[in-house]
Amino acid sequence: MSILTVGTVAFDTIETPYGKVDYVVGGASLYASWAATFFAKDVYMISIIGDDFPDEELSKLESRGAKTMGIERVAGGKSFFWSGKYLEDMISRETLVTDLNVLADFNPVIPEEAKNAEYVLLGNLTPAVQSAVLDQLTGSQKLVVLDTMNFWIDIAREELDSVIARVDLLTINDEEARMLSGERSLMKSAKIIMEMGPKYLIIKKGEHGAMLFHQDEIFYVPAMPIPDVIDPTGAGDTFAGGMLGYIAAQDNVDFDTLKSAIVYGSATASYCVEDFSNEKLKVISKEDILGRVRKFKSLVDFSL
Amino acid sequence: MSILTVGTVAFDTIETPYGKVDYVVGGASLYASWAATFFAKDVYMISIIGDDFPDEELSKLESRGAKTMGIERVAGGKSFFWSGKYLEDMISRETLVTDLNVLADFNPVIPEEAKNAEYVLLGNLTPAVQSAVLDQLTGSQKLVVLDTMNFWIDIAREELDSVIARVDLLTINDEEARMLSGERSLMKSAKIIMEMGPKYLIIKKGEHGAMLFHQDEIFYVPAMPIPDVIDPTGAGDTFAGGMLGYIAAQDNVDFDTLKSAIVYGSATASYCVEDFSNEKLKVISKEDILGRVRKFKSLVDFSL
Repeated sequence: MSILTVGTVAFDTIETPYGKVDYVVGGASLYASWAATFFAKDVYMISIIGDDFPDEELSKLESRGAKTMGIERVAGGKSFFWSGKYLEDMISRETLVTDLNVLADFNPVIPEEAKNAEYVLLGNLTPAVQSAVLDQLTGSQKLVVLDTMNFWIDIAREELDSVIARVDLLTINDEEARMLSGERSLMKSAKIIMEMGPKYLIIKKGEHGAMLFHQDEIFYVPAMPIPDVIDPTGAGDTFAGGMLGYIAAQDNVDFDTLKSAIVYGSATASYCVEDFSNEKLKVISKEDILGRVRKFKSLVDFSL
Repeated sequence: MSILTVGTVAFDTIETPYGKVDYVVGGASLYASWAATFFAKDVYMISIIGDDFPDEELSKLESRGAKTMGIERVAGGKSFFWSGKYLEDMISRETLVTDLNVLADFNPVIPEEAKNAEYVLLGNLTPAVQSAVLDQLTGSQKLVVLDTMNFWIDIAREELDSVIARVDLLTINDEEARMLSGERSLMKSAKIIMEMGPKYLIIKKGEHGAMLFHQDEIFYVPAMPIPDVIDPTGAGDTFAGGMLGYIAAQDNVDFDTLKSAIVYGSATASYCVEDFSNEKLKVISKEDILGRVRKFKSLVDFSL
């Protein structure tokens, strides 16, 4: 089974109450692919970088089973750069700098061998770019996951609606679900959004966990309580990548598999936030993640 | 097994995006006792009311197994009155009126037969009044639960610390836990607060559920997703009352029993918020609550 992740591979400068890091590696495709490769091989990355992006970071991903030939390197170009500061509550964040750089001219080209990847993650990008990726795929995909954000709901609603109609699973946060549906109640929002196309919906609630909706069914996974969240950057992408990696490994897209998958995704993301950038992901194993999945089980287990 | 609940029995005027109700019955002891009597009998209520409070409301409670002889009725006095408005998000609320009325001179007197009640809930009141209740008890209690709020952390910290040191279980919300501990991380907050006395701590997170802490163990219960939260007033007291009723029925205070108890409390509270005042609680049965407890089970159940 192969996976395709589309999204940024980039640099971040991040300040949290725990410290500050400059020009660390980040980006949706980087986090998601790192997470997916705990569970699956053949993870095709589709992105664009400048010649400032370190080769060794791509080599590390290759050695985990990622395929980086779909990452376009622009000679003389600079990689996408984001700088932000998390406030004391670690939820609110302020964007200080967004330099699109090479991302401004991103025209993703999917390598021939990746066009029939069974599992696809469209990371947060302009809906037009996300659609351009779908246009190049064979259409034989088993699960296409779309991530987006409030920004696109505000400024590109029509294009966003059109890409939402083409995917199987949408992941957004609770505030965005309310924006997208125009409905206060999350349950009613979920119904409205699933009528827009996706058969599955994940509503992410940050430190409060995530909910998976499918028809009339709901599954809830809390966030793993950890002593200190050092840096939430990349948690959502790590969640999505871990989830999709698990699904690809099972090669099954039924509701029960997806329930387990979002626990595996949450477990992977719970490690991501324990250090800056993907530092923690570099030192953990699949066994560590499985250990935390078992903790999720005991966290919510009770007798009737 | 007998239960004692101390708290207001009062009138509320409440406005939410779903409507407005005037002078409906409410109060911590009323909600908690209503909830507890789904599971247990002999629920002694300790409160104070004016002669404006309707007898039939007390009769309904009596017919469920509550004992109202500990509710002092002040001739010519007016019952505690609170008026508030919930904003569009149904979380933020604005207090419009707080009339203490007879509550200003509340000196709780515990009936002789209630002094050895095994299970005690000290609803949100001044810490001095909560202490005065503890002073009258036999000290043979199996579990004493304390509820409080940010207001007392701000203006009566010393008295509050002293009553916290005397109880077995404290229930507060996440913001209050951070205030009380001076610590951002909820896990660290929980450690600090349990060192202040209580062996158990429940951190309530409103629409995001609740967490139970005990030594190094954590249990998490989500809020039951329901289509529309009509009125959140009384949810916390209903949660505490349902929980304590279940514990009393089991007559066991170990961690496993408390885990189940907070699910039963959450299930009861999830009905409370479906209508104004205690209207919904009046039309449901213990079987309905058990049905929702089973839904909690399937909401979080997954395969490893």
